[in-house]
Amino acid sequence: MSEFLFTITARDEAARQGVITTPRGEIRTPAFMPVGTAGTVKAMLPESVRETGADILLGNTYHLMLRPGAERVARLGGLHKFMNWQRPILTDSGGFQVMSLADLRKITEEGVRFQSHIDGHEEFLSPERAMEIQRLLGSDIQMVLDECPALPASREAIEKSLALSMRWAKRSRDAFNLQSEAERAGRACFGIVQGGTLPDLRQRSAEALREIGFEGYALGGLAVGEGQVAMFETLEAAVPHLPDDRPHYLMGVGKPDDIVGAVQRGIDMFDCVLPTRSGRNGQAFTWDGPLNLKNARHAEDDSPIDPRCACPACRHYSRAYLHHTVKAGEIISAMLLTWHNLQFYQDLLAELRAAIGKKQLAAYAAAFRARYRAEKSTESVA
Amino acid sequence: MSEFLFTITARDEAARQGVITTPRGEIRTPAFMPVGTAGTVKAMLPESVRETGADILLGNTYHLMLRPGAERVARLGGLHKFMNWQRPILTDSGGFQVMSLADLRKITEEGVRFQSHIDGHEEFLSPERAMEIQRLLGSDIQMVLDECPALPASREAIEKSLALSMRWAKRSRDAFNLQSEAERAGRACFGIVQGGTLPDLRQRSAEALREIGFEGYALGGLAVGEGQVAMFETLEAAVPHLPDDRPHYLMGVGKPDDIVGAVQRGIDMFDCVLPTRSGRNGQAFTWDGPLNLKNARHAEDDSPIDPRCACPACRHYSRAYLHHTVKAGEIISAMLLTWHNLQFYQDLLAELRAAIGKKQLAAYAAAFRARYRAEKSTESVA
Repeated sequence: MSEFLFTITARDEAARQGVITTPRGEIRTPAFMPVGTAGTVKAMLPESVRETGADILLGNTYHLMLRPGAERVARLGGLHKFMNWQRPILTDSGGFQVMSLADLRKITEEGVRFQSHIDGHEEFLSPERAMEIQRLLGSDIQMVLDECPALPASREAIEKSLALSMRWAKRSRDAFNLQSEAERAGRACFGIVQGGTLPDLRQRSAEALREIGFEGYALGGLAVGEGQVAMFETLEAAVPHLPDDRPHYLMGVGKPDDIVGAVQRGIDMFDCVLPTRSGRNGQAFTWDGPLNLKNARHAEDDSPIDPRCACPACRHYSRAYLHHTVKAGEIISAMLLTWHNLQFYQDLLAELRAAIGKKQLAAYAAAFRARYRAEKSTESVA
Repeated sequence: MSEFLFTITARDEAARQGVITTPRGEIRTPAFMPVGTAGTVKAMLPESVRETGADILLGNTYHLMLRPGAERVARLGGLHKFMNWQRPILTDSGGFQVMSLADLRKITEEGVRFQSHIDGHEEFLSPERAMEIQRLLGSDIQMVLDECPALPASREAIEKSLALSMRWAKRSRDAFNLQSEAERAGRACFGIVQGGTLPDLRQRSAEALREIGFEGYALGGLAVGEGQVAMFETLEAAVPHLPDDRPHYLMGVGKPDDIVGAVQRGIDMFDCVLPTRSGRNGQAFTWDGPLNLKNARHAEDDSPIDPRCACPACRHYSRAYLHHTVKAGEIISAMLLTWHNLQFYQDLLAELRAAIGKKQLAAYAAAFRARYRAEKSTESVA
């Protein structure tokens, strides 16, 4: 029997507050998963990631299969031990990164053949191999392999891609089910709803996945340039067709205001490189919008990014210091700003969970949006 | 009255174990000072530097005067507050870096005019300005401005340079003495012995500095390519002419075996970028010599760098993980290997202090050298 459980502890309109129980620990939802691409959340020690409040990390199958290799990670005791993170890990299937390779990959019914961006050697990823890699890594939540067409695309192209993704979802689920019972215990396999921004295709995809049956349901192919309005409309069309009693995961999202709106539309899980990548680029999230610490106006500012934030950047350093170290290209600026941004994201998710618990999410979201300069965010955050 | 005190607590032949007392904390000697060039020990949080056992950091006047600027640091409350390190800081005078600029600087009796390596703007450093910058930074141990000729050089060139350095030492001391009593309280000014590898010039320099009078005495212009034998011979010629009751500081040294030999010759303080720079280059110090983690032989090695080391790299990660993250260019490899190397240096200094306390330094040093592959170290550590 699986020990992977999802319990909804409170509701506020479409939003849900809950907890996912796994043998490696609980995941409070809505949850934000920091991205640990190649076996590290960039510029962070895992104990520091945990200090921000993260319950789960995301690992990238594509990066790990190329370097250091899934079989090697397995020989070294699995990804958790390798990267010193004993709590849950969700791995993507590698599909999204492979599809982004454009000219370097070729898709067939069987799978996708591609060239490594590191050394150009040829690799092959099929639904079965994607699940095998995730098994070798020891992933707690394993994602099906899907195809994700670049938008805009014709309805025909999206339909054709969706049909392939649904056949791959079935093969992925079958491959997961063939893993030994001991290995699968407490682990989950999530399906991925595709269909671009077309409501009927999203519905068709959700129904196909329900038919197969998964421990959780993700929405893929969003936050790829369609804009927040189209993304929210797609969520409104798709989420009602997902099983209510399973976690809903919006992949690769997003900006703070994206997350607030998606939680209001019934999403339970998020991942995004934005807080970590922005931190390495000298940008800090605040409740008023993002700050660019490179800006000369911070050069003599003795105040912290946010006096109420518990991260070390805010407790011990001025904006002037962060400005100086960003300008000087010092590693400590990436360390401190990444930490701050992950703290901001975890604080935001904690506030969203609390607002749902108090049935005050609409008011919380309105207050957030009134203060947060979303447009500036879109423009200035790399 | 100055609260800067040096107490020798044990002796073993020429070596000394002691403690420097300052208002910002004690410095156990022999001491290794990690280098915090531009207001940060690269890839480390200051609390982590402290965890390794460091009592004092070194800051670089040259780098800080150019960016963010000494006046700016002073307006922001001084270097300790700026970089979140409340313990003692020693600053160099900027001379060594400026002299390294070669074509970009011009030396006169008054001082040295040079161009910033960052934006090319013209700067001027005199003994008086060097001390003013160190005062503005709030440095606990301030170094005189000196000139350091590139070796090899003729006796005449070294003599001429030395004479200038001694005149500058007097002007530096005078400038330090003109700082307000409140500012100087508990702070020290150190002279720097020059003279290349010529024993009589080193002696002349030491005597000139004793005549002026300093709280501590440094040896400059060594570890610049003369080799360990010549360096040790120079120490043997110079150290006996330094006041016995003041700290002896060997600037910019060095490799672990350099430090062991220098402690045996009466040196109390060291600084060097080697542990931090090597860490960023994928190299780890061990009691058997340095390891290059890039080497493929580490790719599947599940053991830590050193199972007895207390640093997080050794407590939580395999050589395989460090190999992977070094190869992938991940910041965590710089963070972990820098931490390990600083821990190694502090452990080495702690063992040297303990060996002096037990009057077993000669035996300790012999055992260290028998095990440590110094030559490999010289070759493979960047």
